Amino acid sequence: MYKFKEENLLETELFNLREKLGEISDLDSSLALLSWDQQTYMPPKGAAARGRQRATISALAHRMLTSAEMGERLQRLHERRDELSDGDRVLVDVAIYDYKRTACLPEDFVEKLAMAQSSGYEAWVASRKDNDFSSFLPYLEKLIDLAKRKAEYHGYEGSSYNALLEDFERGMTAEQLDSIFGELSLRQSKLVEKITASSNQPDITWLDRKWPEQPQLDFTLLVLRDMGFDFEAGRQDLAAHPFTTSISLHDIRLTTRTSRDEPFSCLTGSIHEGGHGFYEQGFKESDTRTPLAKGASFGIHESQSRTWENIIGRSLPFWRYYTPLFLKHLDDGPAKISADQIFRAINHVRPSLIRVEADECTYNLHIILRYEIERAVLEGKMAAREIPEAWNARMKELLDIEVPDDASGCLQDIHWSMGMFGYFPSYALGNLYAAQMFKQIEKDLPNLWTEVEAGQFNGLLGWLRRNVHVHGRRKLAPQIVYDNSGSEPSSKPYLQYLEAKYSKLYSL
Amino acid sequence: MYKFKEENLLETELFNLREKLGEISDLDSSLALLSWDQQTYMPPKGAAARGRQRATISALAHRMLTSAEMGERLQRLHERRDELSDGDRVLVDVAIYDYKRTACLPEDFVEKLAMAQSSGYEAWVASRKDNDFSSFLPYLEKLIDLAKRKAEYHGYEGSSYNALLEDFERGMTAEQLDSIFGELSLRQSKLVEKITASSNQPDITWLDRKWPEQPQLDFTLLVLRDMGFDFEAGRQDLAAHPFTTSISLHDIRLTTRTSRDEPFSCLTGSIHEGGHGFYEQGFKESDTRTPLAKGASFGIHESQSRTWENIIGRSLPFWRYYTPLFLKHLDDGPAKISADQIFRAINHVRPSLIRVEADECTYNLHIILRYEIERAVLEGKMAAREIPEAWNARMKELLDIEVPDDASGCLQDIHWSMGMFGYFPSYALGNLYAAQMFKQIEKDLPNLWTEVEAGQFNGLLGWLRRNVHVHGRRKLAPQIVYDNSGSEPSSKPYLQYLEAKYSKLYSL
Repeated sequence: MYKFKEENLLETELFNLREKLGEISDLDSSLALLSWDQQTYMPPKGAAARGRQRATISALAHRMLTSAEMGERLQRLHERRDELSDGDRVLVDVAIYDYKRTACLPEDFVEKLAMAQSSGYEAWVASRKDNDFSSFLPYLEKLIDLAKRKAEYHGYEGSSYNALLEDFERGMTAEQLDSIFGELSLRQSKLVEKITASSNQPDITWLDRKWPEQPQLDFTLLVLRDMGFDFEAGRQDLAAHPFTTSISLHDIRLTTRTSRDEPFSCLTGSIHEGGHGFYEQGFKESDTRTPLAKGASFGIHESQSRTWENIIGRSLPFWRYYTPLFLKHLDDGPAKISADQIFRAINHVRPSLIRVEADECTYNLHIILRYEIERAVLEGKMAAREIPEAWNARMKELLDIEVPDDASGCLQDIHWSMGMFGYFPSYALGNLYAAQMFKQIEKDLPNLWTEVEAGQFNGLLGWLRRNVHVHGRRKLAPQIVYDNSGSEPSSKPYLQYLEAKYSKLYSL
Repeated sequence: MYKFKEENLLETELFNLREKLGEISDLDSSLALLSWDQQTYMPPKGAAARGRQRATISALAHRMLTSAEMGERLQRLHERRDELSDGDRVLVDVAIYDYKRTACLPEDFVEKLAMAQSSGYEAWVASRKDNDFSSFLPYLEKLIDLAKRKAEYHGYEGSSYNALLEDFERGMTAEQLDSIFGELSLRQSKLVEKITASSNQPDITWLDRKWPEQPQLDFTLLVLRDMGFDFEAGRQDLAAHPFTTSISLHDIRLTTRTSRDEPFSCLTGSIHEGGHGFYEQGFKESDTRTPLAKGASFGIHESQSRTWENIIGRSLPFWRYYTPLFLKHLDDGPAKISADQIFRAINHVRPSLIRVEADECTYNLHIILRYEIERAVLEGKMAAREIPEAWNARMKELLDIEVPDDASGCLQDIHWSMGMFGYFPSYALGNLYAAQMFKQIEKDLPNLWTEVEAGQFNGLLGWLRRNVHVHGRRKLAPQIVYDNSGSEPSSKPYLQYLEAKYSKLYSL
């Protein structure tokens, strides 16, 4: 009889935990919608009230997650961890992880950080506009100081950077990044050098005209549909800075933007966001309203977008199929462009100042530069005021580029102004994870490229669903990579992919 | 020193009250956005999760409003009511009213009601589809029983109906409604009889064609802009069942729909929602995030939409200005339609089955029928199963219409299926309030009709802003009507308005 009661109690504890996590998830969903709406349809004068609405909902979710009640319930469940089913155990473990990660930050610290982020962002917008790093510096110093304190609250092994990296890439360490990025920067720099020196440069003069915008949008919808994006369970809207957000498992919102100056960024951007969207549409139905229905890490999330955007969307087989459809959509456009011409144009390598406009070959170098700087600053090896000089010097070394001003140098990214230190590596890791897992995909799906050339993506999407998406947060990023490649996260497969693709493209 | 401390305490209490009310208001705003999105852009598969999200946010707002902490704070403030400024006193009074109104319902009752509403709605949808009142009857009986219990929880003087009416029309009683509606039904019925018998019927054959939809939308935007709707602080989107919602004072969302079969319902619907929208855009800035920034009653809200939709939007001066613009928008439409022809067409009187499609002359009769039935049912003078018979008999008496089936009879409206008893009178009161205040408007603005004929609405909007909108919930509906007409709510001004307008139109 006693045992029976105990079991019931455990069931009740789990039920109550799920209820509370469900409420937190509903608040997060509401927050996602408030944010999506702000960037798509909200009338401009609604901004001030929207800020307060978001702050209120955030604070409520935070209060719920870190409540004494939640802590005590998780403690009781932890004590009976061995009695839990495998599925429940991982849920409780992840909930405990989130609880600890959040509750270890004192409330007044969280408030201070939120305020520093908000004023830091404002200061950054103004300083970038005025190209005046010095006006941003005191805010940046404050944010760095808070980031250091945050690391202390969290605790860490090895570099203090690890404590911050964990928010984006749990399971990865700065020490591993050093080893991964070391070879990466060396070989990518060399590749870029060779490409720049190659005499076989693509002809892209045909791109130099104005491109109508509606056909760009229509074409992205066609491609996303072909790829398998379920528009009954999601949509695509316009936004100044494209992003993807999940309102719920069956309500995934992509955003994109068009350009009059060139016809491909809308498509590649949409495919990129679509990759994020597939991931968010692919979690387990039974994991909805729990913290398991999220990406394993920012890097794994990025690996999904990069697989679709770069490995598929910038491939020749893809354009063999889509070139006629693309030309048909742009019906007043140039008639005689070949798949090969497009393939070369969208893989044009040019060392450039701005990360978000960088090509595949130079992109990771932008990331490595940021990683080196933010790590040095957080470990106290570089002062914030030294960032511009370090930035410019490293741009010269890695990309042979002179930075004309801080606005197009160290002030270009939003991340640091929002206190997001430790975020950048995920972008590069996404590229590496994508290439590493893609080797396995090609083994498992021998007809993959034939299918892509026929505009068929079921095989690929199914593989990603089964091997990446469905796990949500049940596995950490390195585990997902290992299970899908047989090795630890590494830069080698990506370098092989890059070198093979671009050696052909540039006759190296 | 002691006194000084006390004052501080009072300030702190007020500050904390405002903070908490602000949080509740932010939750309500989020709820409004979740609902708006559901009816405009949400992909269909998002519905189930959206239901849970809305339930969670509602429950949180309810928990906050009825918390012991809130009750105790309001009690303390109530005890020091005399020390409050006028502005603070009305805020505290309204907050206490809302608290009592909500907290008097036991939690398990609220849950039962929510469940009965949800299953009642589902049953109603099916029963209307199948034209089978009997399948809805048990749900309706349950909802009526709960409504009766709700009335008992609230308490009332006179009819128990008053307890429910109060949710929509605080300050109005069933006894007053009887006196107002008595003359109204008599004289409106008579007017309709005369109109139906008139030999001067409008020629509306020119309406019988297909009407393109985009021009309808473009035209509504032009009219709404002219009227003064601020599209920096609001927007208009498409929805199957048009509505207006406030996300915040400067973020008001209108919705509308088009029709291939006739060209005016999109416009009149948009103007109607615009009237609601003006009200919501017109509250005091300092009342934002408090319960004062809401309409005084559903009837006052409806008076705003009806003023713009009917008194202005169905007037001859309005169409003298807009007929050429209307024809220009519908550029492949009939070229030679006159303002007078449109004026007659959009004021065409036809007794019909469906309330939402009724013209000005018959509309209130639909309402009175519903009011009589729901009141009789709630007072226990009619059984739910007797509704169809009573409905059909009264349709015959009031409108001389035979009801062919319950789907187009007593099953046509959603309200009862959602447990909303006491709502219907607000629709008729809106018409009456509008006409009653409009007499004062015409006195105060002698150039009003000249301005309307020039497409200028500043004068009217300014009057409504100053005399209705700005008060929010600081005055009850009857007070607003009295202050803007010098008399109690009455049907006379509306009847005068109707009889004058339609006597001319139909040469009575």
